[in-house]
Amino acid sequence: MDSCVIPLRHGGLSLVPTTDFFYPLVEDPYMMGRIACANVLSDLYAMGITECDNMLMLLSVSQNMNEEEREKVTPLMIKGFRDAAEEGGTAVTGGQTVVNPWIIIGGVATVVCQPNEFIMPDSAVVGDVLVLTKPLGTQVAVNAHQWLDNPERWDKINMVVSREEVELAYQEAMFNMATLNRTAAGLMHTFNAHAATDITGFGILGHSQNLAKQQRNEVSFVIHNLPIIAKMAAISKASGRFGLLQGTSAETSGGLLICLPREQAARFCSEIKSSKYGEGHQAWIVGIVKKENRTARIIDKPRVIEVLPRGAAAPALALAADNSSASSERTL
Amino acid sequence: MDSCVIPLRHGGLSLVPTTDFFYPLVEDPYMMGRIACANVLSDLYAMGITECDNMLMLLSVSQNMNEEEREKVTPLMIKGFRDAAEEGGTAVTGGQTVVNPWIIIGGVATVVCQPNEFIMPDSAVVGDVLVLTKPLGTQVAVNAHQWLDNPERWDKINMVVSREEVELAYQEAMFNMATLNRTAAGLMHTFNAHAATDITGFGILGHSQNLAKQQRNEVSFVIHNLPIIAKMAAISKASGRFGLLQGTSAETSGGLLICLPREQAARFCSEIKSSKYGEGHQAWIVGIVKKENRTARIIDKPRVIEVLPRGAAAPALALAADNSSASSERTL
Repeated sequence: MDSCVIPLRHGGLSLVPTTDFFYPLVEDPYMMGRIACANVLSDLYAMGITECDNMLMLLSVSQNMNEEEREKVTPLMIKGFRDAAEEGGTAVTGGQTVVNPWIIIGGVATVVCQPNEFIMPDSAVVGDVLVLTKPLGTQVAVNAHQWLDNPERWDKINMVVSREEVELAYQEAMFNMATLNRTAAGLMHTFNAHAATDITGFGILGHSQNLAKQQRNEVSFVIHNLPIIAKMAAISKASGRFGLLQGTSAETSGGLLICLPREQAARFCSEIKSSKYGEGHQAWIVGIVKKENRTARIIDKPRVIEVLPRGAAAPALALAADNSSASSERTL
Repeated sequence: MDSCVIPLRHGGLSLVPTTDFFYPLVEDPYMMGRIACANVLSDLYAMGITECDNMLMLLSVSQNMNEEEREKVTPLMIKGFRDAAEEGGTAVTGGQTVVNPWIIIGGVATVVCQPNEFIMPDSAVVGDVLVLTKPLGTQVAVNAHQWLDNPERWDKINMVVSREEVELAYQEAMFNMATLNRTAAGLMHTFNAHAATDITGFGILGHSQNLAKQQRNEVSFVIHNLPIIAKMAAISKASGRFGLLQGTSAETSGGLLICLPREQAARFCSEIKSSKYGEGHQAWIVGIVKKENRTARIIDKPRVIEVLPRGAAAPALALAADNSSASSERTL
């Protein structure tokens, strides 16, 4: 389960605390703060919880930075974290800061819930559909972006992707990682979700397997479609790393994978794109729930849905669709 | 305040979450786990809260350790942390682990309280007495213990302390840091405490000043007595570091400093030593509450109460009392 649900001594209420922290993976400190916060809250959102009563921040500033760097970077990270918390309808009231060789950013989110506020992730039934709310490939994009400055690594992927495409994918990944899964959590209730998890370090396959294990019914998850930030599948293949098409590539602050009744899934996907929830929410039907022994798998040749970066201008895309790297990716 | 108290959406209840993490300071991984846990819980205990609904563990294993070291050290730290949590009547349900250059250990403690379960630390009145529940000098002891292997540093203090005394003081410090302040928290209710804080990184003076600032009445705290692990005052003076007698020496997982009505203070100190609370609880009256503008200070020549390590055999102590270092410390 993404969060533990602890029954309280007070009538019917449950405590849901969750924590996460890691090292910066994007260069923009403000966005890193937002991503860290979105990532912590995601564990609550995966349980359909839309409220958070409190957040604490966990921070280490790097001893390898000079004072000037520290004073520039730290407040920006904190601001990003706080802004995302505010977007989540909560506030940061404390935490702990230390000095460490590496920068660390993370937090603790805590909420006290009534039973109807959360959805236990164990009620998938045969015939359900799996929906994913963010595209995959965030860590591929982050790594490819670092490789722009690493000729040896770049040489391995420059046949399938341009520098500009990597820049756009990196921006898209950052935007997605910083997006809260809160809207999706709210819609889990509207559309009667039976179970959900968020996609992070174990990739879509790992988290699907974890979710399958927890099911009360004898069901299994079969994934047919992989929505992936454009070009990232090609990079994964060309570099021989990540295992993006095998579903094992780690994601950071990824989307929710939600089991929905079949008749609700399409409505969920269309609703989440509605402008009333603000910019940039997406969702795709990625798989189905079958009768089997609580496992998850990706079919042999899953359909890759190339998700175009928002920053991409239309002409550039048209061009990209014409060149050889674009066609190579279609054969993946 | 040591913890934030967050009003919940559910009738009259409050959420109190707190977190702390730091780097190992003792060599015994099991004891380090206990200390880290005791330190996190201490923020709740300082508010008179004796229950904790849940704990999460924050951990980094060091990349500088080889696999064998890691597999030896990490489970012991975790066990220490879990054992202390159990002693605190709670359980560890999750957390986060990363790899980092340095080892990190810490946690998150969360409780949902009714109003009568916590004591807001703001109600000291003129005539109250200050009680401290652990001796000072833990970090002096930890440092002096490291200096046993550092001839240059050791030379500066070996006139005032023997190797054996440092070993005993280190054991005593470790024992104290690993002791939960839970008994003291419970007795805060029995004896009508008006305010409290726990003594950690800012030393007894720093935390007293913080506590004084929060008072609703125009009061100030005056500290006359400093209970200190035996010989640590002498080391602080001889080394020219720490500022133990000035109250600025950092403590780890220190005692509670509690404002009690004058007539209750002596009873509190005698009750906490009672065998019904198990071994090793102590408390001393260290100061008074006067009418003034929310400040705290230590008098010019505070009385140093030398707290003898439990491990010290009686004859060794008699000997220590005869030698010159013992007499020098009396003049501090």
